[in-house]
Amino acid sequence: MSMMNAIVMQDGDVSLQRVELPKPQAGQVLVRSLACGICGSDIHITRHYSEVFDFYRKLGVMPEGVDNHAAVMLGHEFCAEIVEFGPQTHQALALGTRVTSVPILMSQNGAGVGVTPGVNGAYSEYFILDEALLMPVPEHLPPEAVALTEPLAVGLHAVNRGDMQAEDVALVVGCGPIGLAAISALHLQGVTKIVAADLQGDKLQLAREFGATHTVNPSEQDEVAFAAEIAAGKRLVIFECVGIHRLIEGFVQRAPAKATIVVTGIHTANANINYAYATVKELDMRFSYYYQPAEFAACLAELAQGTIPWRKLLTGKVGMDGVSGAFKQLMQPNPHIKVVIEPWRNGELETLS
Amino acid sequence: MSMMNAIVMQDGDVSLQRVELPKPQAGQVLVRSLACGICGSDIHITRHYSEVFDFYRKLGVMPEGVDNHAAVMLGHEFCAEIVEFGPQTHQALALGTRVTSVPILMSQNGAGVGVTPGVNGAYSEYFILDEALLMPVPEHLPPEAVALTEPLAVGLHAVNRGDMQAEDVALVVGCGPIGLAAISALHLQGVTKIVAADLQGDKLQLAREFGATHTVNPSEQDEVAFAAEIAAGKRLVIFECVGIHRLIEGFVQRAPAKATIVVTGIHTANANINYAYATVKELDMRFSYYYQPAEFAACLAELAQGTIPWRKLLTGKVGMDGVSGAFKQLMQPNPHIKVVIEPWRNGELETLS
Repeated sequence: MSMMNAIVMQDGDVSLQRVELPKPQAGQVLVRSLACGICGSDIHITRHYSEVFDFYRKLGVMPEGVDNHAAVMLGHEFCAEIVEFGPQTHQALALGTRVTSVPILMSQNGAGVGVTPGVNGAYSEYFILDEALLMPVPEHLPPEAVALTEPLAVGLHAVNRGDMQAEDVALVVGCGPIGLAAISALHLQGVTKIVAADLQGDKLQLAREFGATHTVNPSEQDEVAFAAEIAAGKRLVIFECVGIHRLIEGFVQRAPAKATIVVTGIHTANANINYAYATVKELDMRFSYYYQPAEFAACLAELAQGTIPWRKLLTGKVGMDGVSGAFKQLMQPNPHIKVVIEPWRNGELETLS
Repeated sequence: MSMMNAIVMQDGDVSLQRVELPKPQAGQVLVRSLACGICGSDIHITRHYSEVFDFYRKLGVMPEGVDNHAAVMLGHEFCAEIVEFGPQTHQALALGTRVTSVPILMSQNGAGVGVTPGVNGAYSEYFILDEALLMPVPEHLPPEAVALTEPLAVGLHAVNRGDMQAEDVALVVGCGPIGLAAISALHLQGVTKIVAADLQGDKLQLAREFGATHTVNPSEQDEVAFAAEIAAGKRLVIFECVGIHRLIEGFVQRAPAKATIVVTGIHTANANINYAYATVKELDMRFSYYYQPAEFAACLAELAQGTIPWRKLLTGKVGMDGVSGAFKQLMQPNPHIKVVIEPWRNGELETLS
């Protein structure tokens, strides 16, 4: 039985383990992971695995008989290359072709790659994808750029959920990977007034480089009032890209009339809200989670065309024996936007300049 | 100084009082009230006046220097006739013309007729309207029908907030005046699957007469699951027309993926919500409060054309000295849909068959 290296999250602990090499089933391919981003949700599930698993169970998406001590092989933002075709595959792409994919296995009841217990993720040397969902990636795009497709798609989908018209004004609160991806998508869609809000000045600078036309630091100024003044009666769309549920309550209270709030964070804790503020201002609250394959493909195309300054998102790289340490660093306040794992090598977290 | 009868709400008490006859200012007309509906919000403000006024103050719509002991002259669903023109009016309509209007005074900073302390309402013998907002009403339509225009407009606006396509499925929870108005609007817009939910069987029967195609009693069956099965993957739009904020939390938990929840109730208490349910299902929550003048006019036109079985909404009539007693009855469980006050006469609440 062949074995491989994989990062396994279990009981709130992230460790490098030797696990069995998976075997592609009908319609599946075995791929070798070339690069995989560390997502905020990977950190979140590691920290709050019991709460997250309980919630999965409530939603009915937790496999039967799996308890909270289940192991998850993380990794859903990746670039990989085709190593082996399973049975009943068309094999239109050659072995060795570099690919990415939406991180879902339709062949396994829609299980999430790097999320569902028992399914391999891209923090492993090898993992499984559906042949039908593979997207070949352009030759000139390095694996660490391809791995950014997924968070960019999350941002684009949030923008599409906001149903933006060119004259609408956007307020993006939180300039981490998802906030910057949203700003980039807003910019590419031709939205002319994009307000970025973040507590860190360097992130606001970065936001400008992705297309923000105005910036505001909420520790100095009410960011909603600031954006509402810029909107001057035009529709304001607020993108919550921080992941702190208390922010939503404040947006509802402070948003101008007819505003839309797009929530991209996943908030499993009970939150408080006074709906009357939303009522008298006729607010819309739209929740954004996933993306369509077409949105994912559009982001890959933008990366290939060079319209997104993706190198500015990439702040760190790490090898397999450095992942556990990297998680510890990322759980503390840190300057990183996106750290990418290279599962084919070892090495500590290295900050890119 | 001329005096008149008016119903005044003060400190949670509703009483018949002699008050000063108001004088129309520039652009205004004095009208005589012919009929005025009792709205659920009139009952609500009477019961919770302190909470409501505190909330008005937070929103900045409470006039300066007015405390929670302020008197409100209720009445915002009305038919009236023109009695006197103020200065700077065009007088295109003759004295005695029967009219209705959206209950707002643009001439007084958008003050609400029958809501804002210090502004006359239509539970008075006479009150003030803006000439520019008057809508003459068809000869053959009795005043009590015209008074239903306003709640019908609330229902129509909620449906428009839902952005319904003919193939979407609607679930209207609560078959009081707003729920029935929403069902009527959905039916007139050609929505083919309209599910009505109410705890009372007779209201479900009524819902069918307004256009509901399916009915469900939530005490017997999960109304959201019932409607989701009818939707069978098509978009479900849930209309909250009860005014109990705990319902919203349940809708968010039980709604199928991609559902929209339109909230029509005004919920000033703090509510609990777990946003994660909304996120993983990508729900929309849209809050509906008011209506556009065009929507109001459309409802008046539907009434005039006889397309809405409005007599089925009208369950009671009461004269001025009966209003206080009627409020006591309406604060208890009761079989009424809509009770209309006739401010030109006395008489106890009379149930229409």
